[in-house]
Amino acid sequence: MNIFECEKFLNSILEPWNFNDFCHNGIQIEGKEEVKKIACGVSFNEDFIDKAIDYNADMLLVHHGIFGKNFFNLSGFMKKRVEKVIKNDLTLIGYHLPLDAHSGYGNNISILNSLKLKNAKRFEVGFLGEYDSKMDFEEFLNKVEILFEGQKLLVYKNNPHVKNVAIVSGEGSDFLNKLDDDIDTFITGDVKEYTRNIAKERCINFINAGHYATETFGVKNLSKLLSDKFDVEFKFLDIYNEI
Amino acid sequence: MNIFECEKFLNSILEPWNFNDFCHNGIQIEGKEEVKKIACGVSFNEDFIDKAIDYNADMLLVHHGIFGKNFFNLSGFMKKRVEKVIKNDLTLIGYHLPLDAHSGYGNNISILNSLKLKNAKRFEVGFLGEYDSKMDFEEFLNKVEILFEGQKLLVYKNNPHVKNVAIVSGEGSDFLNKLDDDIDTFITGDVKEYTRNIAKERCINFINAGHYATETFGVKNLSKLLSDKFDVEFKFLDIYNEI
Amino acid sequence: MNIFECEKFLNSILEPWNFNDFCHNGIQIEGKEEVKKIACGVSFNEDFIDKAIDYNADMLLVHHGIFGKNFFNLSGFMKKRVEKVIKNDLTLIGYHLPLDAHSGYGNNISILNSLKLKNAKRFEVGFLGEYDSKMDFEEFLNKVEILFEGQKLLVYKNNPHVKNVAIVSGEGSDFLNKLDDDIDTFITGDVKEYTRNIAKERCINFINAGHYATETFGVKNLSKLLSDKFDVEFKFLDIYNEI
Amino acid sequence: MNIFECEKFLNSILEPWNFNDFCHNGIQIEGKEEVKKIACGVSFNEDFIDKAIDYNADMLLVHHGIFGKNFFNLSGFMKKRVEKVIKNDLTLIGYHLPLDAHSGYGNNISILNSLKLKNAKRFEVGFLGEYDSKMDFEEFLNKVEILFEGQKLLVYKNNPHVKNVAIVSGEGSDFLNKLDDDIDTFITGDVKEYTRNIAKERCINFINAGHYATETFGVKNLSKLLSDKFDVEFKFLDIYNEI
Amino acid sequence: MNIFECEKFLNSILEPWNFNDFCHNGIQIEGKEEVKKIACGVSFNEDFIDKAIDYNADMLLVHHGIFGKNFFNLSGFMKKRVEKVIKNDLTLIGYHLPLDAHSGYGNNISILNSLKLKNAKRFEVGFLGEYDSKMDFEEFLNKVEILFEGQKLLVYKNNPHVKNVAIVSGEGSDFLNKLDDDIDTFITGDVKEYTRNIAKERCINFINAGHYATETFGVKNLSKLLSDKFDVEFKFLDIYNEI
Amino acid sequence: MNIFECEKFLNSILEPWNFNDFCHNGIQIEGKEEVKKIACGVSFNEDFIDKAIDYNADMLLVHHGIFGKNFFNLSGFMKKRVEKVIKNDLTLIGYHLPLDAHSGYGNNISILNSLKLKNAKRFEVGFLGEYDSKMDFEEFLNKVEILFEGQKLLVYKNNPHVKNVAIVSGEGSDFLNKLDDDIDTFITGDVKEYTRNIAKERCINFINAGHYATETFGVKNLSKLLSDKFDVEFKFLDIYNEI
Repeated sequence: MNIFECEKFLNSILEPWNFNDFCHNGIQIEGKEEVKKIACGVSFNEDFIDKAIDYNADMLLVHHGIFGKNFFNLSGFMKKRVEKVIKNDLTLIGYHLPLDAHSGYGNNISILNSLKLKNAKRFEVGFLGEYDSKMDFEEFLNKVEILFEGQKLLVYKNNPHVKNVAIVSGEGSDFLNKLDDDIDTFITGDVKEYTRNIAKERCINFINAGHYATETFGVKNLSKLLSDKFDVEFKFLDIYNEI
Repeated sequence: MNIFECEKFLNSILEPWNFNDFCHNGIQIEGKEEVKKIACGVSFNEDFIDKAIDYNADMLLVHHGIFGKNFFNLSGFMKKRVEKVIKNDLTLIGYHLPLDAHSGYGNNISILNSLKLKNAKRFEVGFLGEYDSKMDFEEFLNKVEILFEGQKLLVYKNNPHVKNVAIVSGEGSDFLNKLDDDIDTFITGDVKEYTRNIAKERCINFINAGHYATETFGVKNLSKLLSDKFDVEFKFLDIYNEI
Repeated sequence: MNIFECEKFLNSILEPWNFNDFCHNGIQIEGKEEVKKIACGVSFNEDFIDKAIDYNADMLLVHHGIFGKNFFNLSGFMKKRVEKVIKNDLTLIGYHLPLDAHSGYGNNISILNSLKLKNAKRFEVGFLGEYDSKMDFEEFLNKVEILFEGQKLLVYKNNPHVKNVAIVSGEGSDFLNKLDDDIDTFITGDVKEYTRNIAKERCINFINAGHYATETFGVKNLSKLLSDKFDVEFKFLDIYNEI
Repeated sequence: MNIFECEKFLNSILEPWNFNDFCHNGIQIEGKEEVKKIACGVSFNEDFIDKAIDYNADMLLVHHGIFGKNFFNLSGFMKKRVEKVIKNDLTLIGYHLPLDAHSGYGNNISILNSLKLKNAKRFEVGFLGEYDSKMDFEEFLNKVEILFEGQKLLVYKNNPHVKNVAIVSGEGSDFLNKLDDDIDTFITGDVKEYTRNIAKERCINFINAGHYATETFGVKNLSKLLSDKFDVEFKFLDIYNEI
Repeated sequence: MNIFECEKFLNSILEPWNFNDFCHNGIQIEGKEEVKKIACGVSFNEDFIDKAIDYNADMLLVHHGIFGKNFFNLSGFMKKRVEKVIKNDLTLIGYHLPLDAHSGYGNNISILNSLKLKNAKRFEVGFLGEYDSKMDFEEFLNKVEILFEGQKLLVYKNNPHVKNVAIVSGEGSDFLNKLDDDIDTFITGDVKEYTRNIAKERCINFINAGHYATETFGVKNLSKLLSDKFDVEFKFLDIYNEI
Repeated sequence: MNIFECEKFLNSILEPWNFNDFCHNGIQIEGKEEVKKIACGVSFNEDFIDKAIDYNADMLLVHHGIFGKNFFNLSGFMKKRVEKVIKNDLTLIGYHLPLDAHSGYGNNISILNSLKLKNAKRFEVGFLGEYDSKMDFEEFLNKVEILFEGQKLLVYKNNPHVKNVAIVSGEGSDFLNKLDDDIDTFITGDVKEYTRNIAKERCINFINAGHYATETFGVKNLSKLLSDKFDVEFKFLDIYNEI
């Protein structure tokens, strides 16, 4: 697989030009042009790079690449990360918000589908979904626990039933204030000090399923897609993070 | 105690005009002028207001009052909070960043002093402090556990010793990137997905002691100060929050 | 009438999301949900609130509600206004620019229709209109005096005839500079020191019919509309203002 | 008098670099270098220019010159004004906020001194002053009427006494909200629809003495100063404006 | 020709409202309404104005009129330029970016057509064009030398062939970074210190044909157009500039 | 020499925190910590890097490092430059505006001193200097030609004498408009299309001595300084550029 064809293909699907993001979506570090093996993961860090080198990857496909708009200054830990990428001729390619929000391959739609929610409707970079009828909160929570097996969930129960659910992967807790009154349950990947009381006063069930845990779906989906279309293999490298 | 005298007095100490904050520091809701009892707490929410009314408080003194710069729109849960304040003729007074940063009564200096750190030096809204000689990390952690009794600490150990410590109460994890290389240990009140790996790659010990737990000190100090100076009593209303 | 249904209905007509305004359009203070009596008026102030309470109103419908985007700080005269609203469980609902500009219920279209002008064309938040043929300025002024009975008009006559008229209710005098050359007459609700000489040099008749006087139409129209659709009565409370 | 020396001299007094103004302070149109006669006035408009030409002026010294920061576009009425200036080789020099605010020659200090107020203290571009003891409002109003003879004052009496007075020449009514609670009386040069009720609810006497009328002092003072220092005569050209 | 009809006509063609420019496009100084002779040129400066007066022009039609958004301040050399325009009752009309970018009368399309390039495609304010097959660079350069006869070209040859060419008149060298990889040759009107090495490293032929020289086409085209439509004659006044 | 000590030392001299620059001043790419040989030059490009590698340099000290504030995106020619730096473990250190402006080691002060101008006074990032008495322009030009030997100067003579000179290295031609009237001669490193006529109308001699040629002084001075203080040798690598 050629890295520029790969980027063109992914851009045509994810349409990053529609997003006001915190990073460049697409190739962030250009390596050798031909790719045989993709290491995919949630976040670009030294542990991930080391594992990718062990796997003999040519390309790193991540959700969290290099963030921020600054003057060029390659120093400290970031220098070491980039150095390893360049000295191993790797390509770093990242997709952030477009991969949260995508209606086919994104993190949120994947969670929504796994929970058998229907009538998906875009909400911020996430989705709203609903059940045909009210479900007991405990039954719903059980489904969530199965999906995020091994993750310690933080749960604020404020409503005995679940019917209309909002899902925003990663750092989405601030969207609690923007939920319409008909939403009874909100799954996201972080929590703030004020979340508990707002959720309680708004009578909305809140589940923090983890920033990392809610964002493993998209990169796997993209890698699978690439391996189906191009002559390339891939592996999800799980540098698990409880946060 | 007169509410305007109280505000004038606290402003003279905390000098809020030096801060670029997310809320108005000082009186946020004007209630009856004369105050006999102050309910102090970390955050302004319905549970806190209810407890304050039970205590027969006239004034609510908090760290997290009402945040944000928006067009006037008193609705939903915020309407209910403000309604309870107004219908009970309470005054809401809040001090945020000036109370994190104050060198005498602030959250961070209180933590620093409790840990017997020395040579306090302002760092963002927090402080840097140091020990005369290196301490084993386990010994230091024990001190922190005693100070934040009951709080489940999140700990990333990346250095066997502790000598130079940075402390930023509340949501301070992003300052990890701004720490000078001589800092070996960082205590703050939140954590992000990327914190663990940056701390590891920078070899800095990281302790998340909780947003709420790191910010109980300042409001207590201010209330004590007011009760010493004016004819007023106070009570810290602990609406404990693990976050 | 339910306040949320009322807001939804008015929003669907006035489409406030199309305006870059100085206040939140819609419910500004949420009161009790069910409304039997609406007090409508131009401006939200203590005299208006007192009259509304005398009238036993449940909702205040105004053109000038609470303006400005600031950190929350309820003090002084604004505290007293909001306190009266909240302690009487009133709802404050306001529509500003959308009510100047609306082509059916707005302030400007109402003035235009009353003066029998035709071919209404949107201009800023006001309207342009024209007569089939030139009218003597004195004849036109007479129509204006009848419409704004009791209001002391400030008049700069710079053209003997009237055919193409621009109308901008409220503080619109600055739009004098933006008028096309074919406009011969401008009615608005304020005047600046430089208005007289620009009008003279541009040969445009200028009439200041008062900020208050030009903005009584819209709130009356809306209230009438609500009383037709919902089971609610209303009264226009005239806190007349010569300005 | 040389126009560049004149500008340098006035700049050294008024220090326009300390102001964030709406126009360039100083020479706005450069004419012939040598000046014998100065026409001074409040506002730059065609009537004023015509009178100045009749007076054989070489320089126009005004408070309101040409305002606004735009791409160069000399058209319509402004083209005609500038054309008359250039074809008659006149210099246009203007000082705006620095001339309101100056503690020796400014509009506001002149009003304050005429009313025998003491302890002048800068407030925005105006001044605060006080009397040794309370004066009846009617006695004070009488002084104001004498000073602004011929001007129809708009008066909102909300306090029987006058002791602490704020004065802001020109369009200063919005500063009503910024007055400290100890101010009982406010003189300015315009009024807004909401002024009356805020003044009433804050119990502050309000007098609108006219934008033009409150700003005739500064340009006269400057012209006098120039005629004392340089070999130049001057005349105040009164294009009276009730606004 | 009436100046306002002229402006209306040119605006309808050039649609300046679609551009975010550095000057007002259209009439910049209004002169006498009726025009018999147009002096057209690249830049508005004293030499050009003098030649235009010699030619008895009524209107100056330029590419570079008066630039910048500032407070009104007519002094120094700009005062002298404007004074000459006004004292001779001339009209100054300027079109900048819309005249670079226009697909019929613009500077860039004219260069593209003269070089017999095809498939013109808008690129910034310039155009991309291509040949059916590769041409030797020397052959292409010869065409460019003939078109810009007398102009000393600065040439960086980095590719033996020419097929896909980008053309941006005037100060366009910074767009080198934005060229797609399939462009082999770039003609523009300036050069920066870093241009040479970027062109070399990107293997793109670069030709600086001069700011002035690349921008003579548009104003001639517009003048011809006006003389065809209206009863007006014109002359291109060549104040040649090697830059 | 240690790279961090080097940066600390240079920062203490150049104080980059006082400048609002277009790049990070200091280490832009961290290489191996110990430096024996410094390659200094004006601009960071592939030719320069290749020469530096030939020289066995450990550090690249340049005036033009990597500019711009963008999301991280290492691709195309910039990727190749950075790759060579990283694969050779080089450090890239750059100082831009602070090195133009420095009163001891900067580009402009060096030119000023070489021309024996006196009374150096900071002007933008350059300097003003003067001779005791007027010098013939030709004599002055001769001095400039000797200093910039081999550089084709672009000269606009508009004044027979030289006494007060402004010098701004690099792209400084736009400062022509900001020169006070007493400056008779301006040396800078670029020229714009409009420069010639403004210089002529303002009667100011203008010399474009080249962007590259005017900026070779500072990096040599810094390298000399480092070699005096630390155990390190250096070489100026001249990738001459006529621009």
